[in-house]
Amino acid sequence: MPTAPLDPALPLSEAGEFPLIAAITEIFEQGESVLVGPGDDAAVVRIRNGHIVVSTDLLVEGRHFRRDWVPAVDVGARAAAQNLSDINAMGGVAHSLTVGLAAPADLTVGWVLDFARGFAAECAKVGASVVGGDVTASNQLTIAVTVIGGCTVAPVLRSGAEPGDVVALCGRQGWSAGGLAVLARGFRSPRALVEAYRRPEPPYDAGRTAAEAGASAMIDVSDGLVADAGHIARASEVGIDLSSARFEVAEPLHAVGAALGMDPIQFVLGGGEDHSLLATFPADTALPEGWQIVGQVSEPGLDGPGVTVDGAPYEGSAGWTHF
Amino acid sequence: MPTAPLDPALPLSEAGEFPLIAAITEIFEQGESVLVGPGDDAAVVRIRNGHIVVSTDLLVEGRHFRRDWVPAVDVGARAAAQNLSDINAMGGVAHSLTVGLAAPADLTVGWVLDFARGFAAECAKVGASVVGGDVTASNQLTIAVTVIGGCTVAPVLRSGAEPGDVVALCGRQGWSAGGLAVLARGFRSPRALVEAYRRPEPPYDAGRTAAEAGASAMIDVSDGLVADAGHIARASEVGIDLSSARFEVAEPLHAVGAALGMDPIQFVLGGGEDHSLLATFPADTALPEGWQIVGQVSEPGLDGPGVTVDGAPYEGSAGWTHF
Repeated sequence: MPTAPLDPALPLSEAGEFPLIAAITEIFEQGESVLVGPGDDAAVVRIRNGHIVVSTDLLVEGRHFRRDWVPAVDVGARAAAQNLSDINAMGGVAHSLTVGLAAPADLTVGWVLDFARGFAAECAKVGASVVGGDVTASNQLTIAVTVIGGCTVAPVLRSGAEPGDVVALCGRQGWSAGGLAVLARGFRSPRALVEAYRRPEPPYDAGRTAAEAGASAMIDVSDGLVADAGHIARASEVGIDLSSARFEVAEPLHAVGAALGMDPIQFVLGGGEDHSLLATFPADTALPEGWQIVGQVSEPGLDGPGVTVDGAPYEGSAGWTHF
Repeated sequence: MPTAPLDPALPLSEAGEFPLIAAITEIFEQGESVLVGPGDDAAVVRIRNGHIVVSTDLLVEGRHFRRDWVPAVDVGARAAAQNLSDINAMGGVAHSLTVGLAAPADLTVGWVLDFARGFAAECAKVGASVVGGDVTASNQLTIAVTVIGGCTVAPVLRSGAEPGDVVALCGRQGWSAGGLAVLARGFRSPRALVEAYRRPEPPYDAGRTAAEAGASAMIDVSDGLVADAGHIARASEVGIDLSSARFEVAEPLHAVGAALGMDPIQFVLGGGEDHSLLATFPADTALPEGWQIVGQVSEPGLDGPGVTVDGAPYEGSAGWTHF
């Protein structure tokens, strides 16, 4: 259906539900596997390889993002990235997403369309389509995303790590936490870290190549590196020891650490939201490009499955919890 | 993982994220097509017929439900029903769902587990599994559901109605609107209507049989019958005339209409949320059991595609909008 352009300054309450949905839908281009896109009771997507990989996440304003810290286009990119990364962590590639937006009636049309543009641009990085959604009024801006993808080989679970495996990392790690620390103190630089917080750059495709190379377990780092390593350790019933000297601590993290009187390795070990990938591989695996060995898998210690750093319990903040 | 039982009286803020998720996950049984259920970065589901049908919906407290009007188990059942019905309306059957819950920290564990029980019981009616989810804190209780299913024949869209087709309805219609009118005025009876509002009973399986019988267009009635008929009329570029005498107006709707001084046909024509199915069929189709002819498809009138009732524009409320 042709649609009249909507004034970006209009609040949602004056835009009308159907013109708003039409304007959003125009932003979401449909890939060739989409047989029926948005606008009917449901979308229809062709599936080629006999299975789907599915994940869902909620983002709540004030908890997962702040509109004064992150522009709409980046909120959209982050919401998509966080979900695309879950498929990455299974060794898969996403093809379809749905996005629900519960928004205050005074939010502007412009904010929503910028959000949709950021979301669409992030999905385009992996060739995925936004095939459906929902928009409704609420007091607190809440974003609900579901992502669907597929794998070329068997999905890589958290539970497959074996003693003797190496632990490896792919992607920037700690940058988002560094950016958050900067923003929380009212600063806007180092810019590279603030940008990394606003718009993570997950290593899309590294999941698939790790799966094809024989990764035994994998997770995306979203709660915090030590916390997420702990998810692998418990699911696999193993011990994981991380070697702090093995991590590359980027220059801007040193600068922020110095300014805040912190050891910058804390951003790396405790940080989440970069959506880097942490995986285990049999020791003789030729690691794909971009992966760096950062630790070892062992039999669980006396306290049971868990994570140590340089052979000792980790004293820093491992991550965060949702309540 | 074995889990200690959680005290239902605990607020979510004291339950801990992982024990809460473990308790919810125990409620959601996994069907045999689920290769990996909840607990990893994503779920993995076997797909047999080369496509998926996907839909998503948000429910916001105070807008789509009220905790004082609808018990948790029924909020769960409604949230599932509303989504399962979208797959029904494509002529499909759902197999997998995800559910996200953004909840105030003082909501009790008991409310959430009752919600999950109601959600699971509704999904069990069609044999679908809850394969993933997310739980987070927010000020306003918000539920995000995505449903995935498949069709045995080509999905039935809104856009396939042709002049000369008959319009048919399957399932209770107007009962939920009647129940809402009763509750909004502080009454609790007629009980059948209040129950219908609290827990819709969509005619699951009627979508599949309608598709197999050759339905040309289909939609589930969720915005209001006339409004939803309008969605078919515009998508198909046809006129639809509904015959008010063809509708069965249930006895309790007559009673409520008399008490409120309303013609009870208004509940039928304007009501949504029963998730009945409205479809069009070629005139010579032998309609499957449970379907009742309620109107005719014609060329669009002078004003373009749209809906009339008994040959005239409908003056009542056609439904509701989301902003």
